[in-house]
Amino acid sequence: MLRDTNLTVTAFDWVPPMAQGLVRDLRVRWALEEAGVRYDIDLLAQGSQGDDENRKIQPFGQVPALRMDDTSMFESGAILWRIAQESDVLLPHGQQDEVLSWLFAALNSVEPPIIMIAVLDLFTPDKDAAKRVRPTVADMVESRLETLQHQMSGRDYLTGRFSVADLMMVTVLRGLRGSGIIEGFPDLEAYIDRCTARPAFERALRGQMEPFAANASRYGKERS
Amino acid sequence: MLRDTNLTVTAFDWVPPMAQGLVRDLRVRWALEEAGVRYDIDLLAQGSQGDDENRKIQPFGQVPALRMDDTSMFESGAILWRIAQESDVLLPHGQQDEVLSWLFAALNSVEPPIIMIAVLDLFTPDKDAAKRVRPTVADMVESRLETLQHQMSGRDYLTGRFSVADLMMVTVLRGLRGSGIIEGFPDLEAYIDRCTARPAFERALRGQMEPFAANASRYGKERS
Repeated sequence: MLRDTNLTVTAFDWVPPMAQGLVRDLRVRWALEEAGVRYDIDLLAQGSQGDDENRKIQPFGQVPALRMDDTSMFESGAILWRIAQESDVLLPHGQQDEVLSWLFAALNSVEPPIIMIAVLDLFTPDKDAAKRVRPTVADMVESRLETLQHQMSGRDYLTGRFSVADLMMVTVLRGLRGSGIIEGFPDLEAYIDRCTARPAFERALRGQMEPFAANASRYGKERS
Repeated sequence: MLRDTNLTVTAFDWVPPMAQGLVRDLRVRWALEEAGVRYDIDLLAQGSQGDDENRKIQPFGQVPALRMDDTSMFESGAILWRIAQESDVLLPHGQQDEVLSWLFAALNSVEPPIIMIAVLDLFTPDKDAAKRVRPTVADMVESRLETLQHQMSGRDYLTGRFSVADLMMVTVLRGLRGSGIIEGFPDLEAYIDRCTARPAFERALRGQMEPFAANASRYGKERS
């Protein structure tokens, strides 16, 4: 049982403002808060994530990983599904197959084009080319959001009741922050608001943000 | 038990040559072949995947979905994890957490930049802009492949023994076909060859390809 295990989640001591509130340890913190399971945080110094020590538990040199006594896991999706096995809040009785389908949908059908938008808007040096490719990718994102908006009609949550699939989907949709795309889908904005109003989310977000504020001066506020 | 359930996998009756052998029902066929579970195939006419009937079991209007007596699942990752629960071949004893981590890594850390390459190479109308964005994305893919190649050193499979994580990773890596990127990673090419030499893969691939050949004349071979 996770409840009887020493859990440690890896996170960053600081990230640039554009990533604050979006780093994926938020998903794990939120899930653990919903499940009511105690955990510690291991803060990695920004820039050290690619070091061998972190790659032992997160081969891609990222966060989060979850340490559990003698073992560990990586990938937020894997960690969330593991936590959900021990929480009725995250995995409503009898909805196993449906929730698992939507959890993967969030990560593999909805998130890839959202990541692509971020790559074009933020990380492509050739700004002009990125701008010209963007409509193709924005169409892909909007097509996914139309399906989601359809799924949400008459429902507050993807499978009727709040589950780990909603937790994941909402963190994926929050990745559209600043892109101007989610604003065309008011039902999805309401869905995000509904889920992020949960006290467990608020605690998780506060937990991620606090070290960023504490360490901002050390990293230099100008590095945004 | 899946073994005692009527299983039907949705697939296409035809796709353009560039997608043949890569459609995601291949993952489900392969997993069911490895698990030794009998299944039927429901072929969707190309172009009908967005119809309401298919969206009832695959909300995004894609394939595959898995029908199981009175219920169904979608997303290849979800379906594979469900099948793996009942197969020692797909989920070696005692490796649950590790295999789940790598399954999600395939779909959420490795596949997104590979999808991006395909979008740039095949689906972006502005070819010049796509070409200029490509190096940024190719760097992302190569960074993931370097991690994978490191993980494979001294190992034949991601977690030591073949599992559903390898099945998924190999189908993800096959998506680089024609991109000229995988050729820089001979250990990964050998890994793909090792996994796709399995009889279960060969049966799965043959199953996907047969209807394409049978229906090519109906769709017109020129529509490549």
